[in-house]
Amino acid sequence: MEHNLQHTISLLTRTPAVLDALLRDLPEAWTLRNEGENTWSPFDVAGHLIHGERTDWMPRAKMILQSGESRSFVPFDRWAQARDSEGKSLSQLLDEFARLRSENLGELRALKLQPQDLERRGRHPALGVVTLSQLLATWAAHDLTHLHQVSRVMAHQYREAVGPWSAYLGVLQCAGHSAP
Amino acid sequence: MEHNLQHTISLLTRTPAVLDALLRDLPEAWTLRNEGENTWSPFDVAGHLIHGERTDWMPRAKMILQSGESRSFVPFDRWAQARDSEGKSLSQLLDEFARLRSENLGELRALKLQPQDLERRGRHPALGVVTLSQLLATWAAHDLTHLHQVSRVMAHQYREAVGPWSAYLGVLQCAGHSAP
Repeated sequence: MEHNLQHTISLLTRTPAVLDALLRDLPEAWTLRNEGENTWSPFDVAGHLIHGERTDWMPRAKMILQSGESRSFVPFDRWAQARDSEGKSLSQLLDEFARLRSENLGELRALKLQPQDLERRGRHPALGVVTLSQLLATWAAHDLTHLHQVSRVMAHQYREAVGPWSAYLGVLQCAGHSAP
Repeated sequence: MEHNLQHTISLLTRTPAVLDALLRDLPEAWTLRNEGENTWSPFDVAGHLIHGERTDWMPRAKMILQSGESRSFVPFDRWAQARDSEGKSLSQLLDEFARLRSENLGELRALKLQPQDLERRGRHPALGVVTLSQLLATWAAHDLTHLHQVSRVMAHQYREAVGPWSAYLGVLQCAGHSAP
């Protein structure tokens, strides 16, 4: 389907509550374990989503509106959360993510974007020319890619425990395409 | 990690609220679309989870405790929701799933299972001998496989909308191993 700004906002609004319902006060055996070296736990994903709220989505949207294709976005640091999340609890990260997301959606709504604004173009440092519409659709799909990843990382912890049922569980066949 | 009954119950308890936070009142463009012929929408998945609560998990657990390996489980109908969900709204399905899950977890807790109970064996019609521990771990992993699927099905709707970012979104590389 085509990008629809209201559908995107509907989804972006829900993600903090989804992660909260799934992860808050869950045993650390689910939230702190990953899939092996250089992979992320649900705790790491929460930190990554916070970093995106601070440095990626709305800063890039505003850069498109202000500078168009003349300036490239600042590259996104996909490992920033190792530093930023240090010493924090998962509950603190979930609170921080919810607050930042709410502030960012407030800013997005205040822009009162019109269809012609969504066609405005910016420059991604690796992908080249992209539109504001594509950026906002990606913001929503990025939430989904990490919900997909968190489900997979958690299921991985029960890979042995499910015994022969592993053959029937699609999530255990997923090799983890997330980058990361 | 090994199966841990308390960790399993922690996760099973949360799934209705996770799906509620994600799907209730979300535009139907997200909840009713699937990935193509013979695939499931989030609405279909909700119906499938309800069918599991009614016919799969606790009925099988009780059969293991009552009959051991002497009786095979009733095969699970993976397409039952097409009939059972007819005429219902997604909100009704989410309510029904939450109620059934809560009842089933009440029954599970009431069994006061001990470690030796978890080693009791039953017979799966296709997989052969399985343990109660494996069945309960699979109940939790099955929730995760469908959360993984729902994330993927929803992201699929924005496959074109994200433009060149599709290369970076792991969820869009996932071919859908779920069966189905």
